[in-house]
Amino acid sequence: MAQSLPYAQLLSLFWTPLVAVTTSWEGYANGQIAVSVHGASIVPDRPRVIVQLYKTNLTHALVQASGSFAINVLNANQLEVAHVLGFVSGRTSDKLANVPYRLSGLGNPVLNEGLGWLDCRVINRMDGGDMTCFLADVIDGEARVDLGPLWWREMRQRMPQSWQQEWDSKLAREIEISRSTMDLPAASAG
Amino acid sequence: MAQSLPYAQLLSLFWTPLVAVTTSWEGYANGQIAVSVHGASIVPDRPRVIVQLYKTNLTHALVQASGSFAINVLNANQLEVAHVLGFVSGRTSDKLANVPYRLSGLGNPVLNEGLGWLDCRVINRMDGGDMTCFLADVIDGEARVDLGPLWWREMRQRMPQSWQQEWDSKLAREIEISRSTMDLPAASAG
Repeated sequence: MAQSLPYAQLLSLFWTPLVAVTTSWEGYANGQIAVSVHGASIVPDRPRVIVQLYKTNLTHALVQASGSFAINVLNANQLEVAHVLGFVSGRTSDKLANVPYRLSGLGNPVLNEGLGWLDCRVINRMDGGDMTCFLADVIDGEARVDLGPLWWREMRQRMPQSWQQEWDSKLAREIEISRSTMDLPAASAG
Repeated sequence: MAQSLPYAQLLSLFWTPLVAVTTSWEGYANGQIAVSVHGASIVPDRPRVIVQLYKTNLTHALVQASGSFAINVLNANQLEVAHVLGFVSGRTSDKLANVPYRLSGLGNPVLNEGLGWLDCRVINRMDGGDMTCFLADVIDGEARVDLGPLWWREMRQRMPQSWQQEWDSKLAREIEISRSTMDLPAASAG
């Protein structure tokens, strides 16, 4: 078990509220939970976002193929959606089977509930070793009057004990995968 | 004046607290304010961040040359530092002249005050047209017991009227520059 760095608390400031990143490719729709969606434009009428997706996730493969995705911002009570989309892989089940949605203009699943959604088209991508960082134009979206957003630190406090264990073991597996894949080829070094 | 998009309020969730991004190159030290620093690793002992820097900023040129930078997280009372580093260009004055700092292991200015700092080495970069997105290993850092972070929405409320006008005209200029430079070559399209 790695020790916590003395400045770990600073790093916790640099994650964002929980969102469902959804996409579809050749009729197969999928989604995952992320806390790594960030603003990437200062021009109000040409918004952009950056999204980091881990390569082991099915959503990553589908976004690589389709070149688009939707960001669905969860509200403070959508713990169940975060559980369904965030704790299992789309490779073993249809994660969206019981989550009501429609398709956006770009063909991405847009959840019926939540704070709203952004429909995004990928315009550049950067290799991060274990993940890819996608830069995307936001071309459509909707904000809903709703509760506040859901932060991981709050979900962590509020979720059932059984989810905690499920999450801990999933995260431990993902950390080991990232540890062995995060090194970049020397050629891409800064 | 561009109209605000109906989903603009969603986008505001995806920025982070104010930080000073500092760097030095061949003895010239500089810093700027950013709200675009994001976590980029799930491995606790190998932290990474992503930082977006606009190409017109001197700090961008220095980071491109040096391949490293420090993130200094401002505390809730550091409005003056945000003003000094965020409202003028390092091309016309030595912005750090009256800001106490020392140099980090990578040679980056580390402010004496604030919530703490992270010393970062660039490992990959992505062109965003008007900005570059830098992926960096965090190799050192310090968290301090201090006030909470400073959010732009709070600084905006608390700063003097004269700064508001200064900021509005600076931002308007930057938006026009970004609008004319944010398009990427077709080759990099997703």
